[in-house]
Amino acid sequence: MKKNPFDARLKAFADALEKNSLDAAVVFSQHNIRALTGVDCDNACLLVTRKQILFYTDFRYVPAVERLAPYLVIADIAKLSGKKPLSVRGLKFSKVGYEASVPHSLYLRLEKIFPKAELVDIEGDLIALRAVKTESEIAAIKAAARLNDRIWAEASSQFAPGMTERDMARKIKRLMIDYGDGEAFETIVCIGENAAECHHVPDDTLWDGLKPILVDMGVKLGGYASDMTRNIVGPRPSKLYRKVYDLVREANERAIAAAKSGITAAKLDAVARNFLSKNSFGKAFGHSLGHGVGLEVHEAPGVSKKSKTVLKPGMVITIEPGVYLLGNLGVRVEDLVLITEDGCEVLSSSAK
Amino acid sequence: MKKNPFDARLKAFADALEKNSLDAAVVFSQHNIRALTGVDCDNACLLVTRKQILFYTDFRYVPAVERLAPYLVIADIAKLSGKKPLSVRGLKFSKVGYEASVPHSLYLRLEKIFPKAELVDIEGDLIALRAVKTESEIAAIKAAARLNDRIWAEASSQFAPGMTERDMARKIKRLMIDYGDGEAFETIVCIGENAAECHHVPDDTLWDGLKPILVDMGVKLGGYASDMTRNIVGPRPSKLYRKVYDLVREANERAIAAAKSGITAAKLDAVARNFLSKNSFGKAFGHSLGHGVGLEVHEAPGVSKKSKTVLKPGMVITIEPGVYLLGNLGVRVEDLVLITEDGCEVLSSSAK
Repeated sequence: MKKNPFDARLKAFADALEKNSLDAAVVFSQHNIRALTGVDCDNACLLVTRKQILFYTDFRYVPAVERLAPYLVIADIAKLSGKKPLSVRGLKFSKVGYEASVPHSLYLRLEKIFPKAELVDIEGDLIALRAVKTESEIAAIKAAARLNDRIWAEASSQFAPGMTERDMARKIKRLMIDYGDGEAFETIVCIGENAAECHHVPDDTLWDGLKPILVDMGVKLGGYASDMTRNIVGPRPSKLYRKVYDLVREANERAIAAAKSGITAAKLDAVARNFLSKNSFGKAFGHSLGHGVGLEVHEAPGVSKKSKTVLKPGMVITIEPGVYLLGNLGVRVEDLVLITEDGCEVLSSSAK
Repeated sequence: MKKNPFDARLKAFADALEKNSLDAAVVFSQHNIRALTGVDCDNACLLVTRKQILFYTDFRYVPAVERLAPYLVIADIAKLSGKKPLSVRGLKFSKVGYEASVPHSLYLRLEKIFPKAELVDIEGDLIALRAVKTESEIAAIKAAARLNDRIWAEASSQFAPGMTERDMARKIKRLMIDYGDGEAFETIVCIGENAAECHHVPDDTLWDGLKPILVDMGVKLGGYASDMTRNIVGPRPSKLYRKVYDLVREANERAIAAAKSGITAAKLDAVARNFLSKNSFGKAFGHSLGHGVGLEVHEAPGVSKKSKTVLKPGMVITIEPGVYLLGNLGVRVEDLVLITEDGCEVLSSSAK
């Protein structure tokens, strides 16, 4: 019989319940459920106990779940309406884990479903488990990163003077649909000084064929995200732009050289940040160095000044230092990397 | 000076606070904030009081908000960290409205931001206000519906034997990016008996040029959604399919004829449901007749058996009866309509 590809993670999660003296945990987040079972379903709840796993969903999804995940025991999600307490033979619910990200209205329902239970936030455990990717997840992310490279090559080769940011973004989005499952996040295209705004939305700014272009893009493939930022320097960059560009690229490369199992995320952030600070651009690097990538484009671990997370083999993170000078320029160089025992594997292979 | 295009709705919301003896309300949902201010921002909070409106956001968004919405008073969202209670000169917070859909973790933060306040769920007020569209919203939804018609015409004219559901969905998605802002929801394409699964995901099923095809699609344009379902009957439909198709279309048309201001949503649902029941297909119509459409593709009012909502001019809803016979066929005919004083205006103009 087909096995749950995330069996080891699910077992680790069930083991964590024991550690926290929990009788059970309920998981509602679609991504968390997928990361524990392989099933992508937008109306489901996973009840995890040390003895038993139950997959609650509604009748519409039952045929598909039975077909795709015969290893799951399916139950009717109507039992979680909150109209009466949940009762499952052989299980008691004194202390139940839940995800603090659930809507408050659902939390109020959980109080009715488990009227005698203490509810304990266990989302941190799930986030930590998801941060370390399985082999199949790594393969999926690598495939998404490779496709992202291909789309960047094909789209950017068609960028021409007279095109707007919106035109360029549209080219990328189309290719993401042609070759993949669409965007993992809204594609960012910034011409010239627009790149100084970290959250610029592609607009009707025209490209004159000279100004630098910053593109932050990630295709989704098989449910997994990719994420990369590249810059088209243009034929005659200003001296300042050239200088900033080289510094940001070096910051990116220094961080890549330092990334490995055992280092804390904060220390990795500091490698890039200290380098830019020494070169007088520390203040212009206003965001953190990176973030985890997986089912979501932003997930654990955060790679920031404050993150105490110790990097482990199997984590996939971005390394994306940037320098932003308002009204003038913005440069960010971002790669997706897989942490390994003694270093990291760079998954983005586009020239930079 | 530029005025808030949603001033009337915002004022109605502030008035509702008074009715409920609330001192203030905090709005975190991105769509709710947009529906009250016109501003689309993914890290914001609106504090609405009877005297004052404050738009909290972070430094990254301040330049754009100042430019696009000079009518807003901007404040620093860091003040809502929960590290200390919020204090705003001249305001007391004894009873504060919030949205029950906020993550539970944010609710816990609200308890710290307003330590002396009773927190009251006011999301229902916001949902009800959003259900009645402003003139500019109606214009935006009409434009999205027209574009959806155009994309359906262009895409479906290219459907050919040998194409898969995925190929057809991809054609539609591409056009949605070329002409609009992409999909309002995952495009559904079902060939033959796949249409019997309400939540079928486009797969590699090949079209033989004969089987019926069901397509449920909605392009997003200017932030607003559209939604329509059409069926390609094919050259030689079975007698049963032909019969079901004609009944579903008649159910759709009967409901459209009955839709007007003053009728309850439940009564409108019953028009289609009773017609299908009389013709022996009531049980095969397993979902509700429709739903509101606006910034979200599913919003208030729900048009179901149980919905007591009285339809009002300015509401935009779908009318989408369907019949599903597992392993055999599925038909759904869905139009987007605008409720008017004495009837409704059908916004989907594709042939059915």
